Amino acid sequence: MAKAVKRGINMIIVLKKDATDAQIDHVVEKIKDAGLSVHISKGSERTIIGAIGDEALMASVPIEALPGVEKAMPILKPYKLVSREFQSENTIIDVNGIKIGGEKIQIIAGPCSVEGKDILVNTAKQVKAAGATLLRGGAFKPRTSPYDFQGLGEEALKYLRDAREETGLPVVSELMDPRDIELFCKYVDIIQIGARNMQNFRLLTEVGKTDKPVLLKRGMSATIKEFLMSAEYIAAQGNHNIILCERGIRTFETATRNTLDFSAVPVLKEQTHLPVFIDPSHAGGRWDLVEPLAKAAVAVGADGLLIEVHADPENALCDGAQSLKPKTFVKTMESLRKVAEAVGRTL
Amino acid sequence: MAKAVKRGINMIIVLKKDATDAQIDHVVEKIKDAGLSVHISKGSERTIIGAIGDEALMASVPIEALPGVEKAMPILKPYKLVSREFQSENTIIDVNGIKIGGEKIQIIAGPCSVEGKDILVNTAKQVKAAGATLLRGGAFKPRTSPYDFQGLGEEALKYLRDAREETGLPVVSELMDPRDIELFCKYVDIIQIGARNMQNFRLLTEVGKTDKPVLLKRGMSATIKEFLMSAEYIAAQGNHNIILCERGIRTFETATRNTLDFSAVPVLKEQTHLPVFIDPSHAGGRWDLVEPLAKAAVAVGADGLLIEVHADPENALCDGAQSLKPKTFVKTMESLRKVAEAVGRTL
Amino acid sequence: MAKAVKRGINMIIVLKKDATDAQIDHVVEKIKDAGLSVHISKGSERTIIGAIGDEALMASVPIEALPGVEKAMPILKPYKLVSREFQSENTIIDVNGIKIGGEKIQIIAGPCSVEGKDILVNTAKQVKAAGATLLRGGAFKPRTSPYDFQGLGEEALKYLRDAREETGLPVVSELMDPRDIELFCKYVDIIQIGARNMQNFRLLTEVGKTDKPVLLKRGMSATIKEFLMSAEYIAAQGNHNIILCERGIRTFETATRNTLDFSAVPVLKEQTHLPVFIDPSHAGGRWDLVEPLAKAAVAVGADGLLIEVHADPENALCDGAQSLKPKTFVKTMESLRKVAEAVGRTL
Amino acid sequence: MAKAVKRGINMIIVLKKDATDAQIDHVVEKIKDAGLSVHISKGSERTIIGAIGDEALMASVPIEALPGVEKAMPILKPYKLVSREFQSENTIIDVNGIKIGGEKIQIIAGPCSVEGKDILVNTAKQVKAAGATLLRGGAFKPRTSPYDFQGLGEEALKYLRDAREETGLPVVSELMDPRDIELFCKYVDIIQIGARNMQNFRLLTEVGKTDKPVLLKRGMSATIKEFLMSAEYIAAQGNHNIILCERGIRTFETATRNTLDFSAVPVLKEQTHLPVFIDPSHAGGRWDLVEPLAKAAVAVGADGLLIEVHADPENALCDGAQSLKPKTFVKTMESLRKVAEAVGRTL
Repeated sequence: MAKAVKRGINMIIVLKKDATDAQIDHVVEKIKDAGLSVHISKGSERTIIGAIGDEALMASVPIEALPGVEKAMPILKPYKLVSREFQSENTIIDVNGIKIGGEKIQIIAGPCSVEGKDILVNTAKQVKAAGATLLRGGAFKPRTSPYDFQGLGEEALKYLRDAREETGLPVVSELMDPRDIELFCKYVDIIQIGARNMQNFRLLTEVGKTDKPVLLKRGMSATIKEFLMSAEYIAAQGNHNIILCERGIRTFETATRNTLDFSAVPVLKEQTHLPVFIDPSHAGGRWDLVEPLAKAAVAVGADGLLIEVHADPENALCDGAQSLKPKTFVKTMESLRKVAEAVGRTL
Repeated sequence: MAKAVKRGINMIIVLKKDATDAQIDHVVEKIKDAGLSVHISKGSERTIIGAIGDEALMASVPIEALPGVEKAMPILKPYKLVSREFQSENTIIDVNGIKIGGEKIQIIAGPCSVEGKDILVNTAKQVKAAGATLLRGGAFKPRTSPYDFQGLGEEALKYLRDAREETGLPVVSELMDPRDIELFCKYVDIIQIGARNMQNFRLLTEVGKTDKPVLLKRGMSATIKEFLMSAEYIAAQGNHNIILCERGIRTFETATRNTLDFSAVPVLKEQTHLPVFIDPSHAGGRWDLVEPLAKAAVAVGADGLLIEVHADPENALCDGAQSLKPKTFVKTMESLRKVAEAVGRTL
Repeated sequence: MAKAVKRGINMIIVLKKDATDAQIDHVVEKIKDAGLSVHISKGSERTIIGAIGDEALMASVPIEALPGVEKAMPILKPYKLVSREFQSENTIIDVNGIKIGGEKIQIIAGPCSVEGKDILVNTAKQVKAAGATLLRGGAFKPRTSPYDFQGLGEEALKYLRDAREETGLPVVSELMDPRDIELFCKYVDIIQIGARNMQNFRLLTEVGKTDKPVLLKRGMSATIKEFLMSAEYIAAQGNHNIILCERGIRTFETATRNTLDFSAVPVLKEQTHLPVFIDPSHAGGRWDLVEPLAKAAVAVGADGLLIEVHADPENALCDGAQSLKPKTFVKTMESLRKVAEAVGRTL
Repeated sequence: MAKAVKRGINMIIVLKKDATDAQIDHVVEKIKDAGLSVHISKGSERTIIGAIGDEALMASVPIEALPGVEKAMPILKPYKLVSREFQSENTIIDVNGIKIGGEKIQIIAGPCSVEGKDILVNTAKQVKAAGATLLRGGAFKPRTSPYDFQGLGEEALKYLRDAREETGLPVVSELMDPRDIELFCKYVDIIQIGARNMQNFRLLTEVGKTDKPVLLKRGMSATIKEFLMSAEYIAAQGNHNIILCERGIRTFETATRNTLDFSAVPVLKEQTHLPVFIDPSHAGGRWDLVEPLAKAAVAVGADGLLIEVHADPENALCDGAQSLKPKTFVKTMESLRKVAEAVGRTL
């Protein structure tokens, strides 16, 4: 990224009430050493210093650790390429003709983990008939316990490819390891980075080097700013086809598995040009919460949804409790269509 | 409340792996002393004890502190009167003909704080014309800083009464002090208990003794269970006309003032028969988030909304940043009407 | 409080990248209307405005809601009287000769709730013998369930007075209702405001009007800034004898009842001159965590501790699981004494 | 791991109040299909079912999604090898003669990132003289921004090896990518897994296959149970030399970077036999908080500390604000030594 020189005050440094002149001079000197100039405001309570120039030059100056400094407040946002300021119009990602980020709300549906070819192809046909436009399925599963089912691996990726061939639905699967990246590029249409890997910076860098669209899930305790910084990691390598996905954050509330942060959608739509999806299945952790949360997701402005559908949830090898049966999925899609229309979109 | 004897296992006590026979006997003895009987399951890893009978009798037995006990898990919910099990049909509260909790979504609108008679009456007329069915306005304001505007007090309550006379809209205002309860009974139609007082048990007890409907806001860090326990406090005194209001919980995210917990709506609707409202104004803290959050609230199944509207937000004495102008409120109501229709309700 | 005019930049307003000149002019005008002057810095990316003068004058200007404004950052702290800047030396509160906030660490011990005169006096004698210097005991109990024991009320306050007469230990009890304030002034030496009432502003105002020392507990989801604002409420009424007490905050972790925020102690000691206590009993919720947490509290710099001690925890009417037996308390005090010495204090 | 059949009730299933007989039968059938037997308790309010046998067999049965089920509560802990029940005596890890997990508290000190050979060796000598027994230094740095310094890579690992040769201090560095594992095995004595990778299950599996001791940091929003499950991932591969490190969790409080969860230490020491460390530098994010937090860490029972020390914090390329100068580190070690002695340990 070419770094234009940004003139104007780009960082504010507030001094302590009892900061000495020598301390103030030392701070000013550090700022100038970094290549910026200063504006000083001395008040009866506080001296504040405005640093003029490219504040990135000060990234490694531990300004808050300098004697006499109370706090330093950057003015500019730390992410650039993914910001709405960098690109004002919405990014629309074309995946085999499916337009993600446009007027039509896209639905990614399918099982938590791929368990076999027939059941997958079957499910794919059913979700397609109900209106889903992309197919999801886990090949490598991040499981909290080492003793739980870990996914079928490459075999699953092949079944996904087969399901795409039979239905035409582009496929999405989660990548957990940089060593698997070629495998994923071969078989899938969208690479998913899971919540637990949102700050696996090496993985972000690697997918940034490919040209595959990336579905980036928000970490369980990631702020919106950190979420965008992780997207920036991918974009900084040249891959701008990034879909953000809110899937619930960790809070003190235990009645639901996570707390779906719906407010993140309008906030993200304001700050970035990237498409924003919601995953109501993981957030609630219960199939009966999927429909109300999905309706709210459409109403709040999401560009798409990620919904778990399993042909036989009672016998699913993973996350059966939150999976919809195909029949329930059909009904859910019908009710989502009405809400989409009410907010001026299609589905 | 008459306490029926509840037979069957109502509490599970899990012993530590290395619990001795003497410790197990001691636990059994304490349970029997409390008036319950026991069922014991000895496994190779753990002994577990089921306590049979009314587990409320064990409320003051510090069962988890007994030697050898790992944890105690109650089976029954701690709230009774407000539970869906106690009353399966929805509670519908009639406030001067306005039915709260029914098919029609009710909108409570008005300024954060009452600032004068004319501006209030004016705002009341405008929100009524746009479709609001109740009027809100703060008389006593809970402000974080002692140096901020604290509300007009009784004078404000009188203006609210005047606005009701002019428009017919029932009025809602927040009670902060048990000493003001008579004043509120005289002037307002619904007493609001704010988030900061959700566990002010003396205040809950007092409003429980009146026959005024109560709008109970969820505390910033209250679990859904604690929220229902606070409603139970009111109901236990005889007042069952309680409206629950989700207004955002405190999380690590700072991009919005609070995180609106939309999932709480379907969870609450399952667990209680009481109406559930959402306050999108306080949760987001920004007027431009009100419309998307309000649409999501209607979509997720809320029975009503609490929306701040101020004739002149830039000059509001409190919370101007999150207040809608009357003109924006009209537009918001129009879009909410479409979503309400899409989910089979009216507004 | 006399408000000195504070010159210098006291608030920074950052404009949006695409803010128009008309919007910038409007913001400047609002600041000037409020009685402040401005300093403007126009950069290639952002315009920022510094507001010069008393930023309190802008308290009711919803600056962040003005068109074109991205954010407003106040420079000064919102609390004054309780700040270290207002008074640099530590506040030392003298309660019947007990010096709180000085070199000696003070221990407040006693039962969660007062259950009878003899057991209380007995416990008081034992904790005194072990080194406690103040006696605690609940008269009115904030219980999550309306069906739990609510305390003996005035009777309990009388027992506390009796225990003081017999042992000389000053007594502490929690006030929940402004209507009880005279009662408390008559019987107790320190009025406790519980975590659930930390933002019960009417109660804070009332205790601020008395001359009784106040033990203010931090709310479960209160930031350190809000905690200090609540202390400011009390101080603003004239009562500066305030003891702050950290008792655990609510987080996602459920292994302990709350997460004790030890870091709050050095942060508070830096920002305020008031004494800071820690309550290891409520935070952990388990008696076996009291000793390690209490040792850490002394090591981190707390000025005192609040420890629950009950003569017979297994039969306590409240919080038995977290109460120490007198014998364990003796042992705990011995180990605390060594840690106190290691950090240069006495106990 | 050989799975012994665990007889006795190992899971409790609570049915809904209105569960039908057919639903209860269906649940019973699913449990029996999985290979377990049942104990049924029918009460007036609830039926509860105890599943007898190895509950791991039910891992993939979505029991909570079955019609009529309210909740399912496992009795056994999900981790085995790392549990105190599996091994009652403390694990003591020997790293070149340094005993981790024993009576002596071990201090790992050094810079956030390795910046050069001379400065590293210099710092190593100074921290060794002050009493540190292990040297830390980042070679690959997980940075939130793609534009920040990312570490010197292999070059840094070589400098660490050089510093070990010169001082005899074993070295610790953070691994971020499974592709670097051979490199780490060649150069470092302890492999650190950072907080952001605590649930990078592929990385855990890989380090589990080596015989290098692993320093596993707790994820920012990981529960204690999840933390132990991640340790179990490593142990399940055969590597039992795991050091747990609490480094602060994410909460709503923003006055410190994270909230150090000191209570986790006694809770972990009860549940696992593994050594538990604390990192006071990252948690607070400010060098002036290191000493009080480190003292509390020793007092609460930590087996070791991780402290950032930099020869010239003002010019550090990373985390300068939280690094101690060598001189301050000497002073901190002196005060820690006193606290260690007060709690019966050495340092």
